[in-house]
Amino acid sequence: MKAKRPITYAEAGVSIDANARWVDSIRSAMASTYSPRVCSRHGDFAGCFRLDYDEELFRKNYRCPLLVGCTDGVGTKMLLGIETGRLHGLGIDLVAMSVNDLLTCGAEPLFFLDYLAVHKLEPSALAAIIEGVADGCRQAGCALLGGETAEMPDLYAKGHFDLAGFAVGVIEFRRQINPSRVTPGDALVGLLSSGPHSNGYTLIRKLVGRRNLDKHAPELGESLAEALMRPTRIYVDAVRRILGHYRVKRVITAMAHITGGGLPENVGRILPPNCDALVDTQSWTPPPIFSYLQRRGVARQEMFRVFNMGIGYVFAVRPAFANGACRVLRRAGEKPVVIGRVTRGTGKVELR
Amino acid sequence: MKAKRPITYAEAGVSIDANARWVDSIRSAMASTYSPRVCSRHGDFAGCFRLDYDEELFRKNYRCPLLVGCTDGVGTKMLLGIETGRLHGLGIDLVAMSVNDLLTCGAEPLFFLDYLAVHKLEPSALAAIIEGVADGCRQAGCALLGGETAEMPDLYAKGHFDLAGFAVGVIEFRRQINPSRVTPGDALVGLLSSGPHSNGYTLIRKLVGRRNLDKHAPELGESLAEALMRPTRIYVDAVRRILGHYRVKRVITAMAHITGGGLPENVGRILPPNCDALVDTQSWTPPPIFSYLQRRGVARQEMFRVFNMGIGYVFAVRPAFANGACRVLRRAGEKPVVIGRVTRGTGKVELR
Repeated sequence: MKAKRPITYAEAGVSIDANARWVDSIRSAMASTYSPRVCSRHGDFAGCFRLDYDEELFRKNYRCPLLVGCTDGVGTKMLLGIETGRLHGLGIDLVAMSVNDLLTCGAEPLFFLDYLAVHKLEPSALAAIIEGVADGCRQAGCALLGGETAEMPDLYAKGHFDLAGFAVGVIEFRRQINPSRVTPGDALVGLLSSGPHSNGYTLIRKLVGRRNLDKHAPELGESLAEALMRPTRIYVDAVRRILGHYRVKRVITAMAHITGGGLPENVGRILPPNCDALVDTQSWTPPPIFSYLQRRGVARQEMFRVFNMGIGYVFAVRPAFANGACRVLRRAGEKPVVIGRVTRGTGKVELR
Repeated sequence: MKAKRPITYAEAGVSIDANARWVDSIRSAMASTYSPRVCSRHGDFAGCFRLDYDEELFRKNYRCPLLVGCTDGVGTKMLLGIETGRLHGLGIDLVAMSVNDLLTCGAEPLFFLDYLAVHKLEPSALAAIIEGVADGCRQAGCALLGGETAEMPDLYAKGHFDLAGFAVGVIEFRRQINPSRVTPGDALVGLLSSGPHSNGYTLIRKLVGRRNLDKHAPELGESLAEALMRPTRIYVDAVRRILGHYRVKRVITAMAHITGGGLPENVGRILPPNCDALVDTQSWTPPPIFSYLQRRGVARQEMFRVFNMGIGYVFAVRPAFANGACRVLRRAGEKPVVIGRVTRGTGKVELR
């Protein structure tokens, strides 16, 4: 009997060597996000990040640190990114989705890790994603501390992949934002989104169907691909500025990141049981992409339940400070809008 | 013209309500892992974990805390888990893969987050996974602080899903394990694995082909499904015991978690450039599943490059303390094996 030729792991569809090459190629992306607080070296089993840092330049010390952890993916926006060849922005989306969540309790983002599962390692295509992740990390001021790339030809179709992100931040215990402080009268101040961010793309893909996404759409002033693939905004700078400004007065009582479930669900998460939120939907103009999508056959109420409709992040602010907060946010480069207020109620969000 | 009936997000394949029900159903799994250090409530945007804890019962304080972050998935072991209906263990695998990595720098696991991407939310099947994740977290002594479930019918085939995990730990800066202390003469002490753990399953699936995995296999003493789906061991207890025992003497110079790349690559990661590792492969007996797989047509060298071959975790120990370390590990319920030693060299791992 002729001996069978031994089969190797590479023939089974996984190349350990290609993986090693890929790991090398992401080194520079990671290094671009490092601060002296990163203590691990490439090749370590784990990424290490120094919480307290005593040198003059980087003095950061916590008395009672509260660690904050978040995870999220980019959902099916990824499939549209693959179709339109826009992968860099997906990396920014990935960081934004976790980091914006983390901000809501007042935390400072420290580090980020990514999980990338692919059909096959194609370092050139995937490099765009990792560079996007590093770009997002730099915007968020956090270190890309590590990641995992898994090659799974039997789980992911050719050209497909999935992305998950994890962010860790820290907040001094007594400084955490606690939505139980929200009271009737508080103003709701919104920050603009850049479009649908990373939510609602399963519906979006049904609505746009097989249209040519790269064609200029006059009603949008740009192509569908441009409008739909714009990266999720990262609100770190705005939140840092306003929390720093009101460090003593603590007039920001809660913050909400507007993701799946839209304003009703996400503003609802910061309401105490005895409060409602009244949102005046006329107080801002949603980007044209939303009316474009609505015209494809979605009820207005459903639009608000799936999409952020132009508002990506919401602050609850003591009423006397609403105008002042808007001024601080404008100085941070934002165009804040007072979108409503908190009233007595039962935990509902009412859109008008 | 007849008005089109508005389409809703649910009709596009994503049910927000089902997601809400699923989120409710994982509450108890998460709560089963909580300690008083968990400060977040269900529904918060982010999970909060108190690093220092001053009450008498839970006194934990760090002077200069080094945070440690790890991420990993379970690879294509998942596909075998789906085929054999063994999902609970995959949750344990997920925790183990990240937490064992984190241990290598001496860190104490604090909390874990999971990312679960599915074709469709089937709460009953998925509950088994989350209960497995919670089980793994309890074994590792860490809190399941949060997670994300993404429903992506267009990315994952029917019944398919993917899992990614993320662990955060902490180590006092001056206590971190630093492999640069490894020197020629150090003994290599291995802890047994429970089987292939979570690595090499793309190859395993090719090798076992369409065999009936549930049939009793006399050469294994159990079914293939049992041998292949046994959860990855979590080495938290053993590592905590031995580091605690040698807290002052610091005789453990490095630790390696044996994953993809096997002993050569993973022991290689803890070698300084002037050291080799000599591993005596006769010093332990690999579980029968490995010879079963090798007989299906894999070269011995390739087996060691893909699989852990029965050794899941390796300590480098000062030679005078090798026997003492083994005694401590035996008291922690392990069956430690001196598998080799560190010699002068150039960073290579030699198997004999």
